[in-house]
Amino acid sequence: MRPIRTLLFAPANRHELIAKFPRYPADAYAIDLEDGVPEADKKSARAGLPGIVESLRKQDLKGQLLLRTNASRSRNAEADLSAAVQLRMDGAIMPKLETTAELRQFGSAGIPIIGVIETARGVVNVEALAAAQGSHLSGLAFGAEDFITDVRGRRTAEGLEVLYARSRVVLAARAYGLQALDLVFVNIRDDEGFRRDAEVGRQLGYGGKMCIVPRQVEIANAVFSPSAEEIENARALLQAYDSAQASGRGVFEFNGAMVDEPILKRAREILETGLPSTR
Amino acid sequence: MRPIRTLLFAPANRHELIAKFPRYPADAYAIDLEDGVPEADKKSARAGLPGIVESLRKQDLKGQLLLRTNASRSRNAEADLSAAVQLRMDGAIMPKLETTAELRQFGSAGIPIIGVIETARGVVNVEALAAAQGSHLSGLAFGAEDFITDVRGRRTAEGLEVLYARSRVVLAARAYGLQALDLVFVNIRDDEGFRRDAEVGRQLGYGGKMCIVPRQVEIANAVFSPSAEEIENARALLQAYDSAQASGRGVFEFNGAMVDEPILKRAREILETGLPSTR
Amino acid sequence: MRPIRTLLFAPANRHELIAKFPRYPADAYAIDLEDGVPEADKKSARAGLPGIVESLRKQDLKGQLLLRTNASRSRNAEADLSAAVQLRMDGAIMPKLETTAELRQFGSAGIPIIGVIETARGVVNVEALAAAQGSHLSGLAFGAEDFITDVRGRRTAEGLEVLYARSRVVLAARAYGLQALDLVFVNIRDDEGFRRDAEVGRQLGYGGKMCIVPRQVEIANAVFSPSAEEIENARALLQAYDSAQASGRGVFEFNGAMVDEPILKRAREILETGLPSTR
Repeated sequence: MRPIRTLLFAPANRHELIAKFPRYPADAYAIDLEDGVPEADKKSARAGLPGIVESLRKQDLKGQLLLRTNASRSRNAEADLSAAVQLRMDGAIMPKLETTAELRQFGSAGIPIIGVIETARGVVNVEALAAAQGSHLSGLAFGAEDFITDVRGRRTAEGLEVLYARSRVVLAARAYGLQALDLVFVNIRDDEGFRRDAEVGRQLGYGGKMCIVPRQVEIANAVFSPSAEEIENARALLQAYDSAQASGRGVFEFNGAMVDEPILKRAREILETGLPSTR
Repeated sequence: MRPIRTLLFAPANRHELIAKFPRYPADAYAIDLEDGVPEADKKSARAGLPGIVESLRKQDLKGQLLLRTNASRSRNAEADLSAAVQLRMDGAIMPKLETTAELRQFGSAGIPIIGVIETARGVVNVEALAAAQGSHLSGLAFGAEDFITDVRGRRTAEGLEVLYARSRVVLAARAYGLQALDLVFVNIRDDEGFRRDAEVGRQLGYGGKMCIVPRQVEIANAVFSPSAEEIENARALLQAYDSAQASGRGVFEFNGAMVDEPILKRAREILETGLPSTR
Repeated sequence: MRPIRTLLFAPANRHELIAKFPRYPADAYAIDLEDGVPEADKKSARAGLPGIVESLRKQDLKGQLLLRTNASRSRNAEADLSAAVQLRMDGAIMPKLETTAELRQFGSAGIPIIGVIETARGVVNVEALAAAQGSHLSGLAFGAEDFITDVRGRRTAEGLEVLYARSRVVLAARAYGLQALDLVFVNIRDDEGFRRDAEVGRQLGYGGKMCIVPRQVEIANAVFSPSAEEIENARALLQAYDSAQASGRGVFEFNGAMVDEPILKRAREILETGLPSTR
């Protein structure tokens, strides 16, 4: 999966919203079969996916197209995941991820997965999930609203009640080379609050943010774009790598650190995120 | 053990304080043999328990009656735990809990245990403690004062120095379906400070608070009572469960999530906490 | 290693700075072969160590003398570590510590080690590192700048973005009886900011701080010195221990807790840190 600064959601049964995806410059788009769709409509929403997906493809959608399935413990999960595969989605978003067994179950579909950590159990297991071998796990997202409900806490504007879990999820993602997507900001008309919240996420190390309305996309794209210095460093490192390869050296150092695959991967991601061509 | 919003402590050698328990509407009362009793008085305090406990029972004490023993590594632990069993206490509070071996030792008494996490070792092991099978562990409490002494830190009004440990303890409790009791607020005359601190605890997910003076009880009862919305949700979920049972379905979904035993348990707890009849 | 409130760094190729170590009352001094020395100068900087170390010894340097090597994954690590042994340094500072394998590799040199936790992997493994048996690990330090770069976050003045990692590192150190050294404060002319930052570190439980300019040393010495009460408690505990030993009792209690080796060790450290004679 390419780096995601912004992941814009729309419910699978709201075709008029999905049809507008191409208007908004998100790095990825999520068609949602989970919380956004009432229980009674889930089956028909899934049945309607081929038409709307085909329509998006005809419009040459730039960003990656993902499907948020229902949780692996729900009765819809299997059919949702099959739909994601058949529709050749760029990946599946797996809500309420808690165990490596669930991850293996979803991984069998063979498409990249973004796991949403949004329960106490999910946070307790997040390092094991991030470290799971051969899991197709491409990124982790932190779902603050469901998390706080699960632990029976209360959300505040300052957010200290989720600082521990929010920090632990991004740490686990970064330790194992995964993308990290920050929480949904629910006050959809508060652009300044959204920007501040996005900046906190970026300070913690998140690479992007889940967006639930289009107006959040441009703000988050700006907040999560790499700085000129980061781009310059990444470019210099990849040049040094090319020189080392050309002169037959397998390993080399850059800025005093041995350069290994995770460091190269990060540099490539920064350039991919920072270049206008990825949009 | 029934849900505890408030756990009021009094030292075991202060019979005049214990005798007043029935006046205060705590969900549970703790007779303390640990820090509240000087070393020289511990034996006589223990010997005096039958009389004061019998007196409380004659007054038909509504809340649960617990005994805080000395730490399992102290010479008093065994005799304290025996006293809790012989006096048919509703549970034992186990201070400075650090290892699953200690938990097994206390568990052999066969009564419910609330473990107090208040050392660096206890926090490092808290997930293992919460997950321990067949341990009679019913809840976890976080002891901030002893914790900060153990790590050689300093307490502040804002409390950022314990946010990590305080968050980690409640997370472990919630992940494994245990009750979670928040720290003691030591400024016993600062009601407004106590209320704010209790609210922070509730935001983090704690279900109740340890109280060291009676005036803290009513404040904490109010802060930790479930909201009308929580009570309504719990009621609706249990009705849906009853319908599913009546129609022969073993599993069912509610609000898009498969309902399992932890979810049912939580709903029952909310109703139990929220109903006036539990007081 | 004796307790360290202040650890003053100077680059190995800056002999004029190292020569001034005896002027500043740090508890320990670090000659730095890592980030402070450009790649091209590392070899010559290492070659120049015997002269400058001998010169310091002739001046009867009071504090402990340590060598910060390059990270164990770098090509310089082995030669750096050999230099630390041959120069009979009081210990080695091991940057970017991530795995117990690295710790074993360094431990084979047989000198005390302070490991710097400053990557996502290091934080994820910090409990395992702190608990490693026979590792010669004497302390842990938290490196905030490299950490935030590794997780791709951003530093702020308030520091909430590192609160999780900073808390977790000190907790692991304290749980396993290790020294804990807090982060480098980079605004070298902001004494008041440095003092506030040092106080936050102390509140969290850190016993000392890494200093990158001499003016930070006196401030940190003051912030991290034990209080009169701590010194009095430590003295009373060791007296009680001596009495128990004299009367033939192997174990004893003090302030309601069974006194074991970690508690005795801490009391001795407090007295060692607090007594003017250690300076």
